[in-house]
Amino acid sequence: MASPSSTQTQSRSPEIRKDPVNNRWVIFSPARAKRPTDFKAKSPQNPNSSSSCPFCIGNEHECAPEIFRVPPDPKSDWKIRVIQNLYPALSRDIGSKKDGGPDGEMRCTGDLGRVVTGFGFHDVVIESPVHSVQLQDLEPREVGEVLLACKKRIEQIKEYDLIKYVFKNHGASAGASMSHSHSQLLALPVIPPTISARINSTKEYFDQTGKCCLCEVQPKDLQIDVTTHFISIVPFAATFPFEIWIIPRNHSSHFHELDNEKAVDLGGLLKLTLRKISVQLNNPPFNFMIQTAPLQAIDTQLAYIHWFLQIVPQLAGVGGFEIGTGCYINPVFSEDAAKVMREVNVPK
Amino acid sequence: MASPSSTQTQSRSPEIRKDPVNNRWVIFSPARAKRPTDFKAKSPQNPNSSSSCPFCIGNEHECAPEIFRVPPDPKSDWKIRVIQNLYPALSRDIGSKKDGGPDGEMRCTGDLGRVVTGFGFHDVVIESPVHSVQLQDLEPREVGEVLLACKKRIEQIKEYDLIKYVFKNHGASAGASMSHSHSQLLALPVIPPTISARINSTKEYFDQTGKCCLCEVQPKDLQIDVTTHFISIVPFAATFPFEIWIIPRNHSSHFHELDNEKAVDLGGLLKLTLRKISVQLNNPPFNFMIQTAPLQAIDTQLAYIHWFLQIVPQLAGVGGFEIGTGCYINPVFSEDAAKVMREVNVPK
Repeated sequence: MASPSSTQTQSRSPEIRKDPVNNRWVIFSPARAKRPTDFKAKSPQNPNSSSSCPFCIGNEHECAPEIFRVPPDPKSDWKIRVIQNLYPALSRDIGSKKDGGPDGEMRCTGDLGRVVTGFGFHDVVIESPVHSVQLQDLEPREVGEVLLACKKRIEQIKEYDLIKYVFKNHGASAGASMSHSHSQLLALPVIPPTISARINSTKEYFDQTGKCCLCEVQPKDLQIDVTTHFISIVPFAATFPFEIWIIPRNHSSHFHELDNEKAVDLGGLLKLTLRKISVQLNNPPFNFMIQTAPLQAIDTQLAYIHWFLQIVPQLAGVGGFEIGTGCYINPVFSEDAAKVMREVNVPK
Repeated sequence: MASPSSTQTQSRSPEIRKDPVNNRWVIFSPARAKRPTDFKAKSPQNPNSSSSCPFCIGNEHECAPEIFRVPPDPKSDWKIRVIQNLYPALSRDIGSKKDGGPDGEMRCTGDLGRVVTGFGFHDVVIESPVHSVQLQDLEPREVGEVLLACKKRIEQIKEYDLIKYVFKNHGASAGASMSHSHSQLLALPVIPPTISARINSTKEYFDQTGKCCLCEVQPKDLQIDVTTHFISIVPFAATFPFEIWIIPRNHSSHFHELDNEKAVDLGGLLKLTLRKISVQLNNPPFNFMIQTAPLQAIDTQLAYIHWFLQIVPQLAGVGGFEIGTGCYINPVFSEDAAKVMREVNVPK
């Protein structure tokens, strides 16, 4: 065996790889890496404090470039900023607008794997200028403005033909520790496997019944709250304890179809749901994700793709069983979780 | 909205559910639950100490029933014990041996979901009588004995026709905090989605090339170590930084085909690999999982199913992006990780 030596990581573009064993896309992202030899187990970090937070108003110069702000006047104080991620998982500098070009092609590495160049966007939505303000502290109209900022950014990104899917996540990512309220938008040149699986599954239901399974009336015992345009439920086979979905009551495939009136209605229900989670579950960290249609989904697919928000309180980690099998163990039956969430009293 | 009231969880059997949106199996396991209203976010627990450890020699009475021990004499000191899990995710008391019976049938709940009764086995392999001894501290022959104990238990379980797959995981599960070295064996009445996906993918490779993709010569830059019967590699599209696979060099589909000689050889390579991880990555928690064939896989499938050990050091959590998309972000290219692991010096 050779003696130890330092390993140089050459400056490389991100790659998205798939091997023939798992058929699963993995993004290799050197911009986020230390040198491979510097990798160590670490203790959980404490969330950052406001004194050192680049997302706070006044610290804009510490951030990667701004894409836009709300309101748009660069001289007035902002309420929401959409910026580039300082350590993007994907690179916006390879591939060219509106056409594939050679960088967008899939290439094979012998027979043993496939690679797509890691073109894409990785943006951050800063949801408030003030460090201590959480999403649930905002007014329904203001939560709606955050959702509309995501919509606007998705509409900008969908001009790029190479981008197949935009994923939006609020909350902790693997290893992240920014406590200032923000979301991440990842615009990917592949359709992620969970999204493909979801579409195949709702298609099967549609083929059998002629209906979209998320348009169906949800069983009473899974319902939590209902507003003019949205309903919140615990899904029948919730993957995580107290997982909650907020679903548009009328069929809609793309999140970015959201209009101003619905954004305020959704903002109110999202705020209520997050406050219920906070009160009932002792203010856990949480993720909420937009589960929407691929940007280039065709008309026949849209009939069985129905967007929704997926909210997952982080009450337990993901362990070896879940990683190794893709099966999840949930200790709380969905109807029991829904009953608790229906009945929790949120202080005015 | 109703006022708060306490929610009763009735005593119920585990269920395995699938909804038409995600088509993903979720095990609902009330034996592991607090009352739904008692669920709260919690800080990470400290691992248990030896003074309170039911897995330590002398504390056998604090455990669920023993299935067998090594050596088998109940009056001599044991080196390995295989016991029932005190909080099993699945129930061994429903369903009957060797025939399906009504409990094994899938039933539909209207159109909106499918349920399988949660029959199965959830066992624990205690790998040493001494609290502080880790797997990598054992001699190759002793690590081999642990692997042979898993083999023996799998051979017992495969007598149950209802069981489709046995998954073995060493290391932290979601929420677990037992520091005494042990593995969990979960015997499931369904084939987990990750395993189905893997088999579909290796079948596709086999159909195109006529070869098993894990029998193929692995690229030099992904190799770590080679023994008489096994090779360790970082897979081309490693899902996690420093993920390592140990693969039998000759085609073998079922882990339980392992014989005594190969068990010692594998024990030595597993020990070396775990020591390398410990030295290089600062002794991180890790999972290692047996990825094997479904118990009832048919002969034509066996040609493209090749078992392996999957070792995953826990260097970063799984966040919203990974949960929501099934895509993973890996900051270390596989060939860089393999080079580091090839060159690390393990003290004698």
